[in-house]
Amino acid sequence: MSKNVLVPIADGTEEMEAVIVIDVLRRAGARVIVASVGDRQVTASRGVRLVADTELSAVAGETFDLIALPGGMPGAEHLRDSPELARLLADQDSAGRLIGAICAAPAVVLAHHGLLANRRATGHPAFQDCLGETADRVAPVVVDGNIITSQGPGTALAFALRLVTALYGEDRAREIAGPMVWSVG
Amino acid sequence: MSKNVLVPIADGTEEMEAVIVIDVLRRAGARVIVASVGDRQVTASRGVRLVADTELSAVAGETFDLIALPGGMPGAEHLRDSPELARLLADQDSAGRLIGAICAAPAVVLAHHGLLANRRATGHPAFQDCLGETADRVAPVVVDGNIITSQGPGTALAFALRLVTALYGEDRAREIAGPMVWSVG
Repeated sequence: MSKNVLVPIADGTEEMEAVIVIDVLRRAGARVIVASVGDRQVTASRGVRLVADTELSAVAGETFDLIALPGGMPGAEHLRDSPELARLLADQDSAGRLIGAICAAPAVVLAHHGLLANRRATGHPAFQDCLGETADRVAPVVVDGNIITSQGPGTALAFALRLVTALYGEDRAREIAGPMVWSVG
Repeated sequence: MSKNVLVPIADGTEEMEAVIVIDVLRRAGARVIVASVGDRQVTASRGVRLVADTELSAVAGETFDLIALPGGMPGAEHLRDSPELARLLADQDSAGRLIGAICAAPAVVLAHHGLLANRRATGHPAFQDCLGETADRVAPVVVDGNIITSQGPGTALAFALRLVTALYGEDRAREIAGPMVWSVG
């Protein structure tokens, strides 16, 4: 069964992190909605221009199996400041549905909205101090219940495949990793 | 000194490979021109929409320190079929300037235009048979003179950092790898 995934993007989103997550989840068979906070055409952190499938406001009433947040600054701040995304994330967490966040997003978005209290999480080394006493400063990807976090562009492929495992199981992750010339660690 | 880099894209380009190369080379300080074969808005292999900085025809008279080709199908075929890109690549090679290609691009673009004759190269496992007797089926990244090739999305970050090393030296590659939570292998 196709899984519904939301990947929000904004000006200043880290383009590698966003595109790796979108691409890998689509390879796995998910229906991935790329939704912009602000204009649909986004200028990412290193100037790559991405066009979202829709604006976030147009899908704020939908239910997603996974909401996955790319990092990058000020992209993560724009995600943090969207009241629609804040509400989607609060609903997602209280229903126990999956949330993923990488790089700046665990600290800047999830911790800011109180979604990491007493949870093990990781993030970009520059933001790990904002993750509190339960921060994991070593693991490239950390899973705690319904929340999956990761460190940065260099861990984005492992993060994306861990999201695939959470949605579809490890066999599916292995199947798509091979043709990407990667291995599931 | 800023280096001039051309990254051509087209409908069906592998979006992870394109974006990783663009992002990493910009982190290193290069002036990266993303140029489309065809319309400036491109729909990549897994549906990510990218907007090029310009059309390839607008920069066909420029000289680049590096031309780096992403893979993806049918993206690599569109790159192969551009007469302007074929001429840029021939000039690039005869002047001994750098050419990079990953995934389908070494076979579909470089070998097609006769640029891999008697050269060690690699590419996506599905295309390695098209690389002839000098194919390297093991190394994630292969350097032979001015031509640098790589296998796929899972090797794209190592490939991009090898391009940085070729343009700026290994110290620069190490400097930018750290904040990406990666290491130069």
